[in-house]
Order: sequence, then C-alpha cells, then structure tokens
Amino acid sequence: MLTSTLFPKSFASDNHAGVHPKVLAAVAEANAGDAPAYGADPWTQAMEDAFRSQFGARARAYAMFNGTGANVVGLGLALRSYDSVLCPATAHINTHECGAAERILGAKLIPLPTDDGKITADDVREHLSVVGNTQYAQPRVISISQVTECGTVYTADEISELAEFAHSNGLFLHMDGARLANAAAELGCPLRALTTDAGVDLLSFGGTKNGALGAEALVVLRPELDAPALFLRKQGMQLASKMRFVSAQLTALLTDDLWRENAAHANAMAHRLADGVTDLPGVSLRYPVQSNAVFPALPEKAIAELQQRYLFHTWDASENVVRWMAAFDTTPEHIDTFVADIRAVIQPRP
Amino acid sequence: MLTSTLFPKSFASDNHAGVHPKVLAAVAEANAGDAPAYGADPWTQAMEDAFRSQFGARARAYAMFNGTGANVVGLGLALRSYDSVLCPATAHINTHECGAAERILGAKLIPLPTDDGKITADDVREHLSVVGNTQYAQPRVISISQVTECGTVYTADEISELAEFAHSNGLFLHMDGARLANAAAELGCPLRALTTDAGVDLLSFGGTKNGALGAEALVVLRPELDAPALFLRKQGMQLASKMRFVSAQLTALLTDDLWRENAAHANAMAHRLADGVTDLPGVSLRYPVQSNAVFPALPEKAIAELQQRYLFHTWDASENVVRWMAAFDTTPEHIDTFVADIRAVIQPRP
Amino acid sequence: MLTSTLFPKSFASDNHAGVHPKVLAAVAEANAGDAPAYGADPWTQAMEDAFRSQFGARARAYAMFNGTGANVVGLGLALRSYDSVLCPATAHINTHECGAAERILGAKLIPLPTDDGKITADDVREHLSVVGNTQYAQPRVISISQVTECGTVYTADEISELAEFAHSNGLFLHMDGARLANAAAELGCPLRALTTDAGVDLLSFGGTKNGALGAEALVVLRPELDAPALFLRKQGMQLASKMRFVSAQLTALLTDDLWRENAAHANAMAHRLADGVTDLPGVSLRYPVQSNAVFPALPEKAIAELQQRYLFHTWDASENVVRWMAAFDTTPEHIDTFVADIRAVIQPRP
Amino acid sequence: MLTSTLFPKSFASDNHAGVHPKVLAAVAEANAGDAPAYGADPWTQAMEDAFRSQFGARARAYAMFNGTGANVVGLGLALRSYDSVLCPATAHINTHECGAAERILGAKLIPLPTDDGKITADDVREHLSVVGNTQYAQPRVISISQVTECGTVYTADEISELAEFAHSNGLFLHMDGARLANAAAELGCPLRALTTDAGVDLLSFGGTKNGALGAEALVVLRPELDAPALFLRKQGMQLASKMRFVSAQLTALLTDDLWRENAAHANAMAHRLADGVTDLPGVSLRYPVQSNAVFPALPEKAIAELQQRYLFHTWDASENVVRWMAAFDTTPEHIDTFVADIRAVIQPRP
Repeated sequence: MLTSTLFPKSFASDNHAGVHPKVLAAVAEANAGDAPAYGADPWTQAMEDAFRSQFGARARAYAMFNGTGANVVGLGLALRSYDSVLCPATAHINTHECGAAERILGAKLIPLPTDDGKITADDVREHLSVVGNTQYAQPRVISISQVTECGTVYTADEISELAEFAHSNGLFLHMDGARLANAAAELGCPLRALTTDAGVDLLSFGGTKNGALGAEALVVLRPELDAPALFLRKQGMQLASKMRFVSAQLTALLTDDLWRENAAHANAMAHRLADGVTDLPGVSLRYPVQSNAVFPALPEKAIAELQQRYLFHTWDASENVVRWMAAFDTTPEHIDTFVADIRAVIQPRP
Repeated sequence: MLTSTLFPKSFASDNHAGVHPKVLAAVAEANAGDAPAYGADPWTQAMEDAFRSQFGARARAYAMFNGTGANVVGLGLALRSYDSVLCPATAHINTHECGAAERILGAKLIPLPTDDGKITADDVREHLSVVGNTQYAQPRVISISQVTECGTVYTADEISELAEFAHSNGLFLHMDGARLANAAAELGCPLRALTTDAGVDLLSFGGTKNGALGAEALVVLRPELDAPALFLRKQGMQLASKMRFVSAQLTALLTDDLWRENAAHANAMAHRLADGVTDLPGVSLRYPVQSNAVFPALPEKAIAELQQRYLFHTWDASENVVRWMAAFDTTPEHIDTFVADIRAVIQPRP
Repeated sequence: MLTSTLFPKSFASDNHAGVHPKVLAAVAEANAGDAPAYGADPWTQAMEDAFRSQFGARARAYAMFNGTGANVVGLGLALRSYDSVLCPATAHINTHECGAAERILGAKLIPLPTDDGKITADDVREHLSVVGNTQYAQPRVISISQVTECGTVYTADEISELAEFAHSNGLFLHMDGARLANAAAELGCPLRALTTDAGVDLLSFGGTKNGALGAEALVVLRPELDAPALFLRKQGMQLASKMRFVSAQLTALLTDDLWRENAAHANAMAHRLADGVTDLPGVSLRYPVQSNAVFPALPEKAIAELQQRYLFHTWDASENVVRWMAAFDTTPEHIDTFVADIRAVIQPRP
Repeated sequence: MLTSTLFPKSFASDNHAGVHPKVLAAVAEANAGDAPAYGADPWTQAMEDAFRSQFGARARAYAMFNGTGANVVGLGLALRSYDSVLCPATAHINTHECGAAERILGAKLIPLPTDDGKITADDVREHLSVVGNTQYAQPRVISISQVTECGTVYTADEISELAEFAHSNGLFLHMDGARLANAAAELGCPLRALTTDAGVDLLSFGGTKNGALGAEALVVLRPELDAPALFLRKQGMQLASKMRFVSAQLTALLTDDLWRENAAHANAMAHRLADGVTDLPGVSLRYPVQSNAVFPALPEKAIAELQQRYLFHTWDASENVVRWMAAFDTTPEHIDTFVADIRAVIQPRP
C-alpha cells in the first residue's frame, strides 16, 4: 500500500491535490448495487437538479470527464462547420488542449492578445468586419475563461457587457469555468451571477480543481442550443457508462456550498502567500491576485533555488515570472513554511 | 443518503453493476495528499508496470476514460488520413459510438457482415483489391471485438491467423477488448495469449465492465505505433488530470488476477442462466454462450412479461431474441431467482 | 503540338472523352477581358438562370470543380456533426471518393446492399430504429445516384416515393446526378421531373461526363438548406476564382438542350452496343441497359483478348462482368467496329 | 453572345483578368479525342516534366483546381493530426480560406504578427518551447507566402535561412506561391532559386493569377513527403477527371518562360502605377512595391471618388490604405489613364 503522503505540498497546480473527503464519500455511497448506465440513474438526476438550483431552472448540465471535453462539446453546440471562436490568446482551448477544438470541431480559433487574460468587446469588434464574407471563417462564439489563465477575474458587469455585445452581434458567449468556483468565491456572489444572470450561453463548470476526483460539467444556459448535447457528448467520447460516479462528485461539490468553501479557502491561501512575499526586494506581481493563483516575478537565482525544493512552474522565463497555485487542501502551514523559505532564499538573514 | 440498493439486479448490461470493493479501496488509497498530474505519479507507473506484467515488456498502456476513447485514440495511431478500418458490422465502433471514428479520425469504416460477430481473413480479403487505387480509402486496420458483441470469442489461433493475414497485407490488427477479461477467463489463458502472443497490434482493454468505476486502457503492443499516443490521448480529450485515480482502478483489477476472478464469475453466471432455461419449450440460443452474455430466443409473450420485472434489452425483435448480461457481482441467487421466474412465465405449472 | 487523336476510342469511361465544341467555344467567349472573380460575373448569373429554367425558380446552383466536391458540399448542407447518410453500397460517395465524406464532413455512411444500385424505402426503414438513440449516428440523408453506378435509372415515381419516405421520417433526399442528363434522356422527361418535382432536396448535377471540360454543380432544391452553401463551397476548396470559365461550361450544356442531345446520343450508342452482342453465346447483361453503360458478362478468354485492343474496366472479376461506357462523342462507327471485333473474338468465323 | 469587354480594367485583383491566349490555345489543343482520365494522359506527363525542368529532377507536381486546394493538400503531406502551422497572421491560409486548414486538416494555425507579411526565424523560435509538451499542438510546418499578401518578397537568402531554421528544428517549410512567378520575375532569378535551391519542402504554385483559366499545382520538393499525395488530392476533392485540360494550362505557362513574361509585365505595370502617384500630396506606400501589387495610403476623399470609377479594394480602412493589383494583361494605357485620373482627383488642376 502506498503511504499517505508521497509528495510535499505542490504549488504547481490545483490538480495536484487529491479528492475532498466528502466527494470521495459520495462516490462510495453511489456504489449501491446496480443502476442504469449512461445517466439514467438517480445520482445523475440529483446532479442535474443541483445545477438547476445553482444556475436556474433552464440550466441543463451534462457530466463530462475533463475540461477539454466540456469545452469542445460545449463549443460544438454553437459552431457551424465554418465558424470561428474569438478567445484570449492565453485561453486554455487555444494553448493547452493540443488542438482539440481544431481537430474535433474543425473550428478556427482567433487568438486575441491581452494584458491579463481578459478580453473586452473592443478586442472582438475589429474581427467582426469579416461577417458575411464567404472567404472568411465566421465569428460565432466569444470564449472567455473565468478565472482567467492569469488568475484574474471578470466582474459580473464585465461579463454582462461582453454577453450583450455578443448577442447584439449574433454571437454566443462561452465561458471556460474550470475555476468558476474560485471567481464566485472571490467576488462573493452566486455562481449564477457570473453566468446565467450575466448572459453566458455555454459554460464549462470545473469540478476537478475544486476537489473532485475527476468531474466537469457542460452547462447549457441557452435552451435553444441544447438539442444536440447528448449526441455530441457521446460522439465526443465523454459519455461515462457508470455515470453515477461522475455525477455524485459534482453533486457533492454543489451540496451545502462545498464548492465555495473549497474555492474560498484556496483563494485565501493564495492571498496569504502573496501577502507574505510582496514586500521582498525584487518581487512583484505580474497580475493582481484575484483567485487561487499568484504570478510573482522573482530574482532569477531564487527561482532555481526554490524549485529544488518546491514544485511550481515558470510562467514567463524572459521576465522571471513564476506561477504558484493553492488548492482546497493547501493549509496555512503549507503557506507559512513556503513563505519562510522564499524569504530565506531571497533575503537571507544577515 | 441514497439507500444501498435502489434497483433490482439488472441483466441488461454489465455496466449496470457498481464498483468492485477492491477497486474502490484502491481509489481511496490513491487519495494520499498531492501527486503530479497527467500521469507523472506512482499509481500510473504501477499501472503501466502491471500492464507490462500481463502483456509483455514492450506493452505500453495509456489510461482512458471510456472504451470509445480507447478505440478512437488507438485506431488513430495506425490510421493515415485516407485509411479505412475493416470491422464486423456489429462492431461497437461501427454501431454504438455515434460516429466518433468518422468524426474524430475522419476514418472510413467498412462493415463486414457476420453470423456471430466474428470475421475471418476471407471476409477481409475481398476488400483488399482496392489497395493502391487512389480513388478508394485504403484498408489499414482490421478491428475485431473480443468478446464480440454477440458474446462469442475468438480462439488464440483464430486471432493469430487474422494477425498474420493482416501483417502480410500491410495491415494492423486492432482489438476492442472491452470484455477481453471475459474471453481470457472463458478460454482459460493469459491475457497475452489472446493479444501480444497472437499478434494484436493495438488493444482497448476494458476495465469498467470488469468492476472498475470508470477506467479503460489503450495498450500499444507494436512499439513503432506508439510515438504519438500521448498527443492523441490529450487531443482526444481522454487525458485525466488526476490520473492516479484512473490508474489505481486498472492496477487493482490487474493485481492478484482480480480481473480473472471477476470475469470468470460473470461468465459462470451466464452459463448458469443459459443452462437453466435452454430446455424450455420455445427457447433457443442465437449464439453459443462463451462469455458473460446469453442471447436466447424466447416466446414473444414471455419477453414482454419478463421485461415488466427485469431489466434487459431486446437484441433482435424480428426473431424475439433478447440479451442477458451477467456481471462480476451477479450472484447465484440472482440467477436462480431469474431462472425460476423465466420458467414460471414460459412453462407455467399446471 | 500534340496530334488530334492520340488514343483509340475508349469504352472505359465517359470522362475519357474530350470537350464538346460548343462548351469549348463558350469558354473562349467568356475570355472577354476583365470580370469580377468568385462568381460575381454575368456568366455565372447566366448559369444560375439556366439552372432555374431547368429546375424551377427556387433552385440555387453553385458551380463546383468535380463531383466529389458537389457531393460533399451538398451533403454538408444537410448533415449535423453526428449524422449518417444512407446510401447504396455501390454509391460513388461510398466507394470512389477516397473517404472524402468521412474525412471532410465527419459523416458516417451506412452502405445498403442492392441488386442493381437502386435502393427503396424498405432498404432504409430498418435503419431508422436508431433515431433518437444517442449511442448511434443519426440517419439524416438518403443519397441515391441517378443514373446508378450500375447504369440503371430510377423512375420519377420511384424517386417521389423515396422522397416522401425521407421527408415523412425527417430525412433529406440527396441525388448524385453525375449522369442525371442520361437518366432524363432515357426516360424522356425534363430534368426537373426527376429532381425538383420528385422531391429531391439536394442535387449534384454532372457536367463533365456530359461534355464539359470540368464543371459540376450543386443544386439546392430545398431553400431552407441553402444558407451556408457559399461558406461550405469556399471551405470545401471548390470556389473558382475565375468562375466564369466554369459557369460558361454549364450554361452551354443547359442551352438549347445540349445536355439532352449529348446524353441521348451516348445512351443510344450504349443500346447499339448491347444490341450488337447480346445474342452471342456466353454473353449476358448483368443489369438492363438504361443509360450510357453496358455491363455484360463475357467469356473469360474474350475479356483478356479484347482488353488488348480496347480500353474498358472489369466490373466483377468473379463473374467475368465488364463495363462499357459510351460518351457524347462515341460514333456509330466506333460501336460497329467494336461490335465486330467482339463478335470475332467470341464467335470466330468457322 | 457576350461582348468582348464588359468591364473596365480592374485594379482589384489579378484574378479579375481573363486567360492568356496561349493558355486558351493549349486547352483547345488538348481537346484531341479521347484520353485516359485522372492524369494518366500525355498532357499531364508533359506538365510533370515541365515542373521538373523548373524545379529539379526530384520535384513532383500535382495539378490542383485552386490555391486553397494546393495549400491544404500540401500541408496535409507534412502534418500529423496534432500538429500546428506557424504562419504570418496575414497568410491566405489563415485569413482567406474560410478555415479550410482547420476543418479539413484539423490543423492548428499559429498566426505570427508581421510588419510586411514576412516572418523570420526569430518570429518562429519563441513558439518552439512547446515542442514535446503533450498539452500543446506541435509545431510542424512554417508556411510563408511568396509573394506575401502585402506584395513584398523574400529573397532567396531569407528563404534559405528560414528553411535551415525549420529543418534544424524538425520542421518543414511550406510556401504558398500563388504569385511565386511574380517574385521570381522581380528578383530576376529562376523559380527554383526561391524554392528547391532554398530548401522549400512543399510549394503551392500559382497558375491562375499568372494567366491560366484555373490551374494551380502542388509541387513536392522533399521526396519523403510525397507518398500520400495522390490519396490526399483525391480525398481533398482536387482530382480532375479530365485532368489534361488543367495540366495543359500549367504546361503552357511553363513553356518558353511565359510565366516570367506574364509576371514581369504585371510587376512592371505595378511599378509604373506606383511611380506615377507617389509624388502626390498625401500619398505614401504602406509596403515597398516588389511585385504586381501597390498598397498606397490615399487621401480619404480620393478613395471614395476613385472607387466610383475603378474597381479596387480597401486594405486598411483606418489608415486609408488601398490595394491596387496589376495583371498579365494590364496595359501601359490602363495604367496611364488610371494615373491621370488619380492625379486629377487628388491634385485637381488649379
């Protein structure tokens, strides 16, 4: 049997964390004899209800294996074969999904440069001049990430503005919400304030980074896009036969606001970490801390020294920016030890 | 909390069963603090080792979410953009994957009619006349299902013959082994006797129907096809971030031959079921029972009556053939009760 | 300069023929200085008008480079990403387009066995049981070839029946009309009797085999499918920049019924050929002659001997069936010489 | 019959021009009775020889219908399913092909910003850090346009440098040579100096804008990429049945350096046009004139006035830059009249 903690606490990614005990318990509870496969089970029904509670009565949730699956199936609901997706250049769909959107959807992604992972209507507007021109892939979806890949968040107003712009131009608004929970926790608002109520049409809801074993959901918030979802999920290789075990994870997170508890904690740990180091010489934050991520520029020598003891990624080698992530199970002690070590490395005691 | 058994024992599918306790325990044990994501963890390494133990030192195993994912990613390793796959018309890839192979791989499937789900070199040979003709999609892969969708099995010799035929014609042999464990249990041979040693190039190894929560594996048995596997899995939306929880399931099944125990038990239950009813008037078996499936023709009236109390699918409505599946957790009592009810329906006591 | 006839008259294919002089003249006439590109020219407008004259006021014609292009772009108008096409196993889209439909559309083709290249509603019906089942690609289009690949034709009534069946089941009817002209000539009816009036939704209209240099057309007969046609043609790599030279060819064929003259002549030559040999010992027709194709079974030895002097293809080697095609420029003398040679080979003078 | 010149000389595109008389004559000469289809004819053989004369003995040429077809089929020879193409953001494949590369190849395009349509090794280098990272589409091809979409040209040395960089990083160099003839004419060098000898692996050779009716070619300069070309062309819907009529056009252009004569003339006309207006107040060139294109910034009012009489496109509305193209059949008189009108509009006589 493997020992209980093989690795030191990682600051590399929130998916280095394990599973929240309540999620694991829910999986075990779902192992209750036989149940129909492919979603025709009470755990999946309960999950769908839980999503309706959070996102409104018209929300339709579809359990997926991972975020790429949720993104690709979701975008597939909106895209015709000759359409393009306007997204930040930093978007996960553009950078970290190995070209799945192009390969599986045949879609063209139009990457928009940003300072902090966030795009505005103005960024999109100039790309709309090609609408109706048959030589060009046709803009159809604006896709944003909430939290962004830079750890920043859109306010509800910013999302509303983008949604209105999208809809008034015949486009849809898609949100990659792999860390939507962290955004809502940071902004102190319900999930629906940043999605349903703000005009988001299609949402990838992230469970895995929030404490699940492996569970995401496509949430269709615009009913007229919903019809082909079951077919696209199946064809997109995201249909679990024993779906109850995926659904139960999502329900656990949505029950008693466990999602918020986990996300708020992770965010708090990131703030604690940032607060602990920003006064150091040579340390500055590339992006404001608005979720569970910290992107500090560090003295180059310190990076190498710290990476010998801690797991975290370099974000921008040319400017010595690294990325530190906190998770639902990161403790104040983890942070305080890390901060102490950082301080020791950067500002050795005289 | 949901009660422990909501549904009566299902004979509709082996994926109506839950998770084997050892698999669930393995998942819980893997929840041991942090671990690197995407497969760089010791549970995944252990899983890869376990597959090498079963399939030989050159076997490379890749955890996947479901069988469609394993099939599509695996076939993708062999197919060029203009290739076709020759498969039984009954093949899962041809019928039950919602066109994933066509959509995601752009591949042409050539369905071959069969009596019992099994194809031979002769079935394939006539389709090879188009090799080199640029008007035609080019035959590249023969794909077989072991166990077949009809519950029948290929012997090791039959597989070897197909593999030799494939290789001598420049083709590869792919096996959809969603129930490979059941075939090896039935034939009383190691897994590798039906795969590695028989010349199979690419294997989808099924864990879910064998007692996993949700875990399959692509096993590459021909090293020269292996190079793009990590890219195709990622792009194919089958890469689990917290992969350890998928890997641990597969390792559990491959440890101490749990796979064989589960499969042999399910097969025995299918035989017990068939043996219990074949003497009945109007009952005959469409296919021989060679795994955990029974395909009986029943009196039409009996089907309707039994389906009011039991969950199982109609296989061929025109000939009143139904499909009964047993699982790792089907008990003799389940079978005996079912048999008694069947007998009572078909041959009421005078 | 190349000499005027390098090759003997071919009986292998109607696309071995050259260009009808009126078509070539039309191309030369279109070379009249500058004109807007991509179809915004008067020759294309004239072509569109010509198609409306033949197929009705609601017909929308799109010039294409070849038949595969017309088929793929046309089917693309009807297919959602998870749909299937039901077609005869002999269909050009299924056999001779190198998997373009699977690769470019991601579509699943369901090949239906036939005796003579023609399918009926009954052939399709059994495949509709999967409608609504999310495990299966969804039947969406019935595709027929008129003339079939076996040289046979559907009557207007047969097409109407298929169209009604299709529409009453939520399907569309696509016609690969690479030799539609030959069918209409044989049946002595207008083009629209076999298409618009019979309920065909999407038509690939063949010009090349009818005497064009290289010109086909997608004709959309169901206006609600028309919207994306310009985008799909462009993306499908079928948009000619100097489109006037493609359009002018089609207009030439549709002017003064040149299409009918060419097709009727080719058909007459095929009948003359068949009539000249069917009394010979060991000669029988696999399919009735209903267009410009003859499919005779011949004594095996005669095939080899004739192929030393004449160009034609073997259709079914196992039964010694060959295919002879006539073209718009096949002359009675060509036929009579060929017939004499066939007779001499099969029935040598005593 | 349509009159000989319906439209005034266009400055909008070189594909508004008609067909060079020698090309049209070659098409007519190819109409010499029967010939085998799909390229097995002497005109196609002659075309292949002509390309070998220009590009070296190892060059393999494949006739295509249009530039998108040549680009997509050519890129398809180099790309694996998970690869990306690094290209200037202005590249035709990125902007004007309606997402064909994404849809048909499933490829990811990585657009690189440029000042003048030209990229360097430095532009590419920063995108290579993802090589081997399975989360990312893998850089595989650098695609450049020669002439660029900005009318600028790469020197042979610049191309060699890019090719060496590509090859030393495991990449291939693709050239969209829709106007390669214009580049070679401008630089006064053989076609092969900018392609074969400079290390280009895959070339789209443009015939249509150079005076053809409609003919492009994929030229494979790296033999190990050649094997699947015939299959990809067929599947890519670019295989002409009566191919001789496409081949004959290309041969005509490559005979007696007609390609150079046409291109040099068009270039000279562009220079004459630029020279005639650059002294005007408010007129400046966005890019240097290096081919048959002129990109002047004009007084805003002048643009509107000139576009009432002349056909040309706006290139950058925000800076009042327009695009003027000359063709093989643009005459000095066309230019001089246009120049006079421009001068009159911008600098009215006192």
